[in-house]
Amino acid sequence: MATTGKVIKCKAAVAWEPKKLLTIEEIEVAPPQAHEVRLKVVATGVCHSDYYILYEGGKEHGFPCVLGHEGAGIVESTGPGVTRFKPGDKVIPLFVSQCGECQLCLSDKTNQCVKNWTVDEKNMESKSRFTCKGKVIIQFMGTSTFSEYTVVREVALTKISDSAPLDKVCLLGCGISTGYGAAINTAKVQPGSTCAVFGLGAVGLAAVMGCQAAGASRIIAVDINKDKSSKAKEFGATDFVNPKDYKKPIQEVLMEMTDGGVDFSLECAGNVDVMRCALESTRRAWGVSVIVGWVDVKDVSTKPVDLICGRTWKGSYFGGWKSVQSVPKLVSDYMDKKIKVDEFITHTLPLEKVNEAFDLMITGKSIRTVLKM
Amino acid sequence: MATTGKVIKCKAAVAWEPKKLLTIEEIEVAPPQAHEVRLKVVATGVCHSDYYILYEGGKEHGFPCVLGHEGAGIVESTGPGVTRFKPGDKVIPLFVSQCGECQLCLSDKTNQCVKNWTVDEKNMESKSRFTCKGKVIIQFMGTSTFSEYTVVREVALTKISDSAPLDKVCLLGCGISTGYGAAINTAKVQPGSTCAVFGLGAVGLAAVMGCQAAGASRIIAVDINKDKSSKAKEFGATDFVNPKDYKKPIQEVLMEMTDGGVDFSLECAGNVDVMRCALESTRRAWGVSVIVGWVDVKDVSTKPVDLICGRTWKGSYFGGWKSVQSVPKLVSDYMDKKIKVDEFITHTLPLEKVNEAFDLMITGKSIRTVLKM
Repeated sequence: MATTGKVIKCKAAVAWEPKKLLTIEEIEVAPPQAHEVRLKVVATGVCHSDYYILYEGGKEHGFPCVLGHEGAGIVESTGPGVTRFKPGDKVIPLFVSQCGECQLCLSDKTNQCVKNWTVDEKNMESKSRFTCKGKVIIQFMGTSTFSEYTVVREVALTKISDSAPLDKVCLLGCGISTGYGAAINTAKVQPGSTCAVFGLGAVGLAAVMGCQAAGASRIIAVDINKDKSSKAKEFGATDFVNPKDYKKPIQEVLMEMTDGGVDFSLECAGNVDVMRCALESTRRAWGVSVIVGWVDVKDVSTKPVDLICGRTWKGSYFGGWKSVQSVPKLVSDYMDKKIKVDEFITHTLPLEKVNEAFDLMITGKSIRTVLKM
Repeated sequence: MATTGKVIKCKAAVAWEPKKLLTIEEIEVAPPQAHEVRLKVVATGVCHSDYYILYEGGKEHGFPCVLGHEGAGIVESTGPGVTRFKPGDKVIPLFVSQCGECQLCLSDKTNQCVKNWTVDEKNMESKSRFTCKGKVIIQFMGTSTFSEYTVVREVALTKISDSAPLDKVCLLGCGISTGYGAAINTAKVQPGSTCAVFGLGAVGLAAVMGCQAAGASRIIAVDINKDKSSKAKEFGATDFVNPKDYKKPIQEVLMEMTDGGVDFSLECAGNVDVMRCALESTRRAWGVSVIVGWVDVKDVSTKPVDLICGRTWKGSYFGGWKSVQSVPKLVSDYMDKKIKVDEFITHTLPLEKVNEAFDLMITGKSIRTVLKM
């Protein structure tokens, strides 16, 4: 392409500092270095983690930065040594790498990878290919999809079907895969079981979908926003519970509804108090509770006896999917109508309206907004 | 027997109120009612849980009471409807029942039982067959082995080999089975794995033994009492670490020793801070940490990301053993020299010296004291 080997100037939404609105800037995107790929971002979802980093997570995540980690695009050019990608390939950037060679990639017990971007956070500046107004701009999670172009490492990119609609399947880069996989891969929901999903954003609805796909016979969707009820049922929930409708703690409500607790619960709200509720809503003898929502500034707690009795507490990161190999299959599953994607998208906006997308999400008006470049 | 159907007067160590020394009293033990068995206790171990209830757990556990839940004895008489036991049988009372018929007993996912004593704590007084000085004396955990005679429900009793030495195998009624099973059944320690065991009382040493039996290639024993080192190695530990020897947190020490964390950790100290250390000492991608020590007055905490990264937090109760069916097999394993028991017994004392046994335990001078009646 005409741009190969050259710096590309393009638009991006820059987060200059925490707790401030993103601003649209012209940034410079350097050519990809060895084992890196530059891509044109076509569409990106706006995820709660982006909001979290900006408004709740604090400075240590690296500012200024370009957020966005749920995108899809087309390869523009490749750096030296890249063999798996060529210009024109449809791709999804991955915030969890899969090098395929490390101790973690070779184990079937994890989807982590030693080459993951976050392993080496001290070098975030040297790894970034973005500059703006003379400053290095950190690439959030190594993806930075709130930009017209981005550079990612080849271990953090996967090729998908040429016929995949990028403005839909971008959501498989994070939210849907995370919730769906948390139910299937991490909780390992069993046929005929009873499940509860706390927090009905995109991740939570995807977890509901995962519970249904796994054959759960009862799926209790929990949210303090009563407007989520019908959407939850569209995704497979059999019951909707609004904790605001009860005076007693929600774990007691669920215990009574299920005669002793659910078999599996998934926390998709990113709130430590909800994480505790989710654990304590499970059956004492064998309940499994999975933390899916992201928080890193607070502790989560429970009584030791609430585990000693027989419960298991786990966490799920990107739904347990080994990223490079799994995302193309999830794209195929969508195209074969085995999993929902379109139903998550309530709003489509241009990149310039990214702050509006945050507002829609945080006020519970949207499930997912897709930004089109 | 001459005593059948009659009240038996005998000696017992009574806990009249929390935080007070036990006193030896003459108590009355009523005949067994339907589906109950009265037994002569021959020997009983003194477990940290007995100490915990007396000195740390608080009044809600039921006082006055007779503590002791790690005993062995001989059936004296049986109540109506009892078919599995007859006078003269050697037996071990069980603080976890196994009725064999309930939803929990029929599941292979738990060793809990809906008929467990603690399920119905409100009726502790009506379920007790003990009186002393005109007062009902609660039977702690439905066992109360700090007494020359006790009455237990038939679902909480198991028959063992006629040739089993009761003053040894009594320890299979709690501590040894709990630690050993936590490694084998709950953590499911894998061959070749790296393990850490925190707290080297009888439960912790039994967990070390369990890790070794499961084929762990490295077993790091952790205790702030340096005198535990040689005992730990006798039970199979490959390393001994005293947190007092380091300035940095023990989880960092273990992370460095193992290049990223142990595969499995077991907390056998009953301390919420140690529980957190044990979790955070495991490998982020797939570490499994099991809480074995008992605390019910404090919360245990961690950062959500310390689970989200891929760890699993579980608890173990009586080592995950289905009690009635498993304890006789553990007795056989001991008699076949497949598991250690004698090596746990550092002191033997008469019932009258039960308070001294507590002192020996809490000052780290004993592993287990066996009280002989």
